[in-house]
Amino acid sequence: MANIDRMQAHADRLGVRLRPHLKTMKAARAAEALMASGASGITVSTLKEARYFLEHGFRDITYAVGMVPTKLPEVTSLMAAGADLKIMTDSVEVARAIATEADQNGVGYQLLVEIDCGDNRGGLQPDSEELLQIAELIEHSSAKFQGILTHAGHSYGVNNATAIEKIARQERDAVVGAATRLREAGYTVDTVSLGSTPTALYAKDLSGVTELRAGVYTVFDMDQQARGVCKTDEIAISVLSCVIGHNKAAGKILLDAGGLALSKDRSADQFRPEVGYGQICNQDGDLIAGLFVTSVSQEHGHVRIRDPNDYELFPVGSYLRILPIHACMTAAAYDHFNIIENGVLAGKWGRVNGW
Amino acid sequence: MANIDRMQAHADRLGVRLRPHLKTMKAARAAEALMASGASGITVSTLKEARYFLEHGFRDITYAVGMVPTKLPEVTSLMAAGADLKIMTDSVEVARAIATEADQNGVGYQLLVEIDCGDNRGGLQPDSEELLQIAELIEHSSAKFQGILTHAGHSYGVNNATAIEKIARQERDAVVGAATRLREAGYTVDTVSLGSTPTALYAKDLSGVTELRAGVYTVFDMDQQARGVCKTDEIAISVLSCVIGHNKAAGKILLDAGGLALSKDRSADQFRPEVGYGQICNQDGDLIAGLFVTSVSQEHGHVRIRDPNDYELFPVGSYLRILPIHACMTAAAYDHFNIIENGVLAGKWGRVNGW
Repeated sequence: MANIDRMQAHADRLGVRLRPHLKTMKAARAAEALMASGASGITVSTLKEARYFLEHGFRDITYAVGMVPTKLPEVTSLMAAGADLKIMTDSVEVARAIATEADQNGVGYQLLVEIDCGDNRGGLQPDSEELLQIAELIEHSSAKFQGILTHAGHSYGVNNATAIEKIARQERDAVVGAATRLREAGYTVDTVSLGSTPTALYAKDLSGVTELRAGVYTVFDMDQQARGVCKTDEIAISVLSCVIGHNKAAGKILLDAGGLALSKDRSADQFRPEVGYGQICNQDGDLIAGLFVTSVSQEHGHVRIRDPNDYELFPVGSYLRILPIHACMTAAAYDHFNIIENGVLAGKWGRVNGW
Repeated sequence: MANIDRMQAHADRLGVRLRPHLKTMKAARAAEALMASGASGITVSTLKEARYFLEHGFRDITYAVGMVPTKLPEVTSLMAAGADLKIMTDSVEVARAIATEADQNGVGYQLLVEIDCGDNRGGLQPDSEELLQIAELIEHSSAKFQGILTHAGHSYGVNNATAIEKIARQERDAVVGAATRLREAGYTVDTVSLGSTPTALYAKDLSGVTELRAGVYTVFDMDQQARGVCKTDEIAISVLSCVIGHNKAAGKILLDAGGLALSKDRSADQFRPEVGYGQICNQDGDLIAGLFVTSVSQEHGHVRIRDPNDYELFPVGSYLRILPIHACMTAAAYDHFNIIENGVLAGKWGRVNGW
């Protein structure tokens, strides 16, 4: 909750709405907490998430992965069921298909155009001709041109405040520049949206931006810790695991949490390769310095001992908590979160997975 | 089905029972097909799998991950519900706890001891003193000493027949040696079990072994292909994915299958790093040479184009199939398999996930 309130206060200070990305938590109770803290709506990464959150009463939803024509029937169905759903593309062909479909069935699809701010994933360049073509196509149809959106995924490639702040400015300049071009060409741009947890937290000035999206800040993880975006004690997600063996010949403790329970994400390698597949804590969540999940197989976590005393400290049958590398990837292996308050199981939060 | 029959015929030729590992498929319909082909029982990697398969009528189950005392109540419950369940440890302390519990509640837990044949994961050395201590503890209790088990996971670290055959001999020698020691000390050893897909397929002589375990051979994957264990056209699992964007500035095609849909497993890197997160095929499953999922984010697969013609060949909205790196990891993101026969959806096979 402290993580949630901190980001909301930050967005409030910067004068932008916060539309948290639920791709990390995928849990209705998490969305409730975020909305209660002041969020203006939610972002999702699959249409299944959109359906789940709509069924739990959340209507203002942005689906921030590129739309394709074969998914329009589900979008139509979600809108008919009450969703105020925004969709996204960077393709003129898709925009044309959306315009055509909107005219044929009279549905006012709300379209955002994705801008590439340097991440080299999806998105048009801010100065591209296609940006104006898409706005033109949509404005002359029953669909609505809603605005633009970007994501500075490359902020995950650096680990210091100066570098993250620079990418945050690049992210802002890309969408503000694109919005200016669109407005000069006569289009209304309601939404100017950006965000990643690192750039969101390090942004100093979001003039011209209307909306911030970020997700992993809700619980953080060792990847964020490795790049200086959070402190270890701000990480609010862990995997409880049991010691199932001591391989003394190999100098290892074995845990019953492996690649499936933790994910095989190695994002922290760039800055903290020693962390491997997770930082180990005791059952109460207190960090055990120097103890990491060094390798994994499907159901086994391998822990290189620091010295033979570790066998006595962590006997077979004892429990340890693992702070995961990438919360979004790890959480996807579970159908609910166990909520721990003051060391006690205080409830379960269900979540949605799959597609 | 050809993969299943091939391994069964191989086990029959070698004169050993086949107890396939369901950790890959986790599907009752897959277990049915394996049993129909001649399997003698099944292996599972979690007690949740054991429960699922028992509920689907499979009773002869080996749980091949180290037991801990806190999981004994679930083992007791499964046995009370009719499971012929074998459990495993490499710890004298756990064996003592099992013996004590067996004497207290009168349950005849069937215990296998794990042997390390060079994989350095779990298991005792074949010549270890603890092996005899565990047999002694169990034989003097209401529990039953069932035998020994090993897994040559290090067979995944090589990529030629000679090296795999050598590990297969090492795997056999480890368990046969351990069995001999136990028998010489007066213990009955009913089960001498080993297996990994590579060593199972390359084993030439399994004298002294009673049982073969392997799992991923049912569908194979690019990891197995990379080390020469299967041919690409034997891979019977794929992820259907849609082209959601062309980032021409970055030279990329974007797919809607990313780290969650494919897993972040990079096991094939050692021998075929170019394959990245998966080999791309057309919708019918025909391989597209040189086209791979080069990187992933949560819901995006990034495909480096071979040349600009790829944009025309694979337009936004078109579908591609991805042969995954590691079938066990990829399948875990789905709650069912779509079964394709002769290019047509012929059914759905449900599966169990989680713990």
